[in-house]
Amino acid sequence: MKSINNVFARPLRAATVAVSVLAGMLTVGSAFGQHLQDIARAESPLVLQSRGSFFVGGEQVERSATELGSFGPDDRISVNQMYVEYMVPDGKTKVPVVMVHGATLSGKTYDTTPDGRMGWYEYFVRKSHPVYVVDQIGRARSGFDQSVFNSVRAGKLSPDQQPSMLRLADRFGAWTNFRFGPEPGKPFPDTQFPIEAADKLSRQSVPDLRGASRAENPNWKGLADLALQLNGAVLLSHSQSGSYPLQSALINAKGIRGIVMIEPGTCNAQVHTGDEIAVLAKTPIFILFGDHLASPTGMPGPTWEDRFNDCKAFKKRVDAARGNIRLITTAETGVRGNSHMMMMDRNNLQIADLILEWIDEQAGR
Amino acid sequence: MKSINNVFARPLRAATVAVSVLAGMLTVGSAFGQHLQDIARAESPLVLQSRGSFFVGGEQVERSATELGSFGPDDRISVNQMYVEYMVPDGKTKVPVVMVHGATLSGKTYDTTPDGRMGWYEYFVRKSHPVYVVDQIGRARSGFDQSVFNSVRAGKLSPDQQPSMLRLADRFGAWTNFRFGPEPGKPFPDTQFPIEAADKLSRQSVPDLRGASRAENPNWKGLADLALQLNGAVLLSHSQSGSYPLQSALINAKGIRGIVMIEPGTCNAQVHTGDEIAVLAKTPIFILFGDHLASPTGMPGPTWEDRFNDCKAFKKRVDAARGNIRLITTAETGVRGNSHMMMMDRNNLQIADLILEWIDEQAGR
Repeated sequence: MKSINNVFARPLRAATVAVSVLAGMLTVGSAFGQHLQDIARAESPLVLQSRGSFFVGGEQVERSATELGSFGPDDRISVNQMYVEYMVPDGKTKVPVVMVHGATLSGKTYDTTPDGRMGWYEYFVRKSHPVYVVDQIGRARSGFDQSVFNSVRAGKLSPDQQPSMLRLADRFGAWTNFRFGPEPGKPFPDTQFPIEAADKLSRQSVPDLRGASRAENPNWKGLADLALQLNGAVLLSHSQSGSYPLQSALINAKGIRGIVMIEPGTCNAQVHTGDEIAVLAKTPIFILFGDHLASPTGMPGPTWEDRFNDCKAFKKRVDAARGNIRLITTAETGVRGNSHMMMMDRNNLQIADLILEWIDEQAGR
Repeated sequence: MKSINNVFARPLRAATVAVSVLAGMLTVGSAFGQHLQDIARAESPLVLQSRGSFFVGGEQVERSATELGSFGPDDRISVNQMYVEYMVPDGKTKVPVVMVHGATLSGKTYDTTPDGRMGWYEYFVRKSHPVYVVDQIGRARSGFDQSVFNSVRAGKLSPDQQPSMLRLADRFGAWTNFRFGPEPGKPFPDTQFPIEAADKLSRQSVPDLRGASRAENPNWKGLADLALQLNGAVLLSHSQSGSYPLQSALINAKGIRGIVMIEPGTCNAQVHTGDEIAVLAKTPIFILFGDHLASPTGMPGPTWEDRFNDCKAFKKRVDAARGNIRLITTAETGVRGNSHMMMMDRNNLQIADLILEWIDEQAGR
């Protein structure tokens, strides 16, 4: 925050303004500025040709008064819309990048890191890419259809008919599963995650209503449609959403200039048909994993090493179909300690540079 | 969107790029660009000293495996945090403004309008105010505590123990209640709301888990804390959140330089004690209502005229306590047809100027 001395005339407030100026932006611990004042000030202004937000898709559906929360009459609402916020840098621009987040998170994933540094959203914009950050359909600003929950509350449906809401929690869902360290509270000596800000990552978590089912996921089409609206874009996904861009390409690859998958939950190596692999082989694909992949996640399901191996098998099939696919770990580039949340890691901009270089080479033309 | 011709070299895509350039930004109807391409291009670049997002408040609480969605073990999550996104303009800045939205909506309220024009968020920044837009706690990117829903699903709580999720819907919750017209689908001849984009406003709606109870609303303290972190800010509220800044001031008025209430759901004229009125009389307050206040809302509860009258009674008490309070309707300034969603109305920037003028005069020093 810049000094706002000029606009404060009341003498009583002089003391607090002085504290703010002294505390600056890179230090912690002002009594009343714990979160805001941890945020680093950018070194140069950000100049935007445009910015804003909009929705992709969505349908209007009829709902009963009960389903709407028993306040007004029967009426109509929208469902399956995808919230998109964007920034377009001033000057000559490169290929647009669409960023989609993982489980129990929102588009916030790609903005200011938990410890207050610049995220990939702004950094990619500063590197001349128009960037579009979405909230997955069914979550955060994209909203969700509340009808079934209200019907259960009213006794019109049985409780087991309402979906489970997944929440990845701090010690296992995040610390071990995201590989900050081998057990809760204990970091890897070389971890790149800003572990002192783990409680602020915890604030980013939202209930995930899609955790239970991956069938007919409306995000797949939403992302394909968005890429098409952009007349070509790179889709960048993470974790739960890792495989979404592949599904989007199978729906309509026309707008998809390239796919970047950050530690995808699955590459569906054994799931895709030969015909599907042939389609996917036409789009450049970059898959990136971090370090300490074999570490126990503390959660059910495969380790990140298992998932890496699935992507290896996927790459083999795409290679056989003469596709353009690259699969690497940050560790094999000589950089150690990257976590599952590499967009928030201390070296997040260094990792971004790896991706930007690939985009320039493989998807930028 | 600016032309992105330069970065597209593939001949096959030349046709779609040309369509985009021809369609421009102010027209509707490109086959694949319905939402994005409706967005108006800004006339000049936006230059930001900084931007980003963070959370205010929040506590970590223990939750059972069932409460977390029956995937991993018992663990800890955050609740009651408030998501805040912000932009600080380059150059000399005026007093920061915090914007908080109404029922079943998110911070999106103050961004790009449903028909693609600039919202108050960016406009206030262009007028030299650092602006902080929040998602109410319990909604959108602020998340909510999913525990009770998962417990009901698992049969550990009875269905009536889970809260109702309110959703304001299209025909009554929005069209008549927000006063676009006297009955669903029928506009007032002079309406300022961009009714052709009503289906895009519908996309902004999210389930509202706070509708049922206003007691101990954590947003009150969250807003007071945010104002304090900013070393002084104007709190601008709307509809459901209309009275929040008054409650924030009663918790701690130290950071609150002024209060702007856009069509508050209530002013609690009869609720506040004399001591409370004495406290509120120390902060400048501006209350703004639109036009057609007596029109039937189509929903339970008071009309907007009733709410205006409640605020009139509130003003009388604050005046008696020698406070600085202004209450007007846009109609009495000679501007007709403003709706409840005046931050989205066609003349939204003209209304913004009314507010900015008041802030400059009453809260800017």
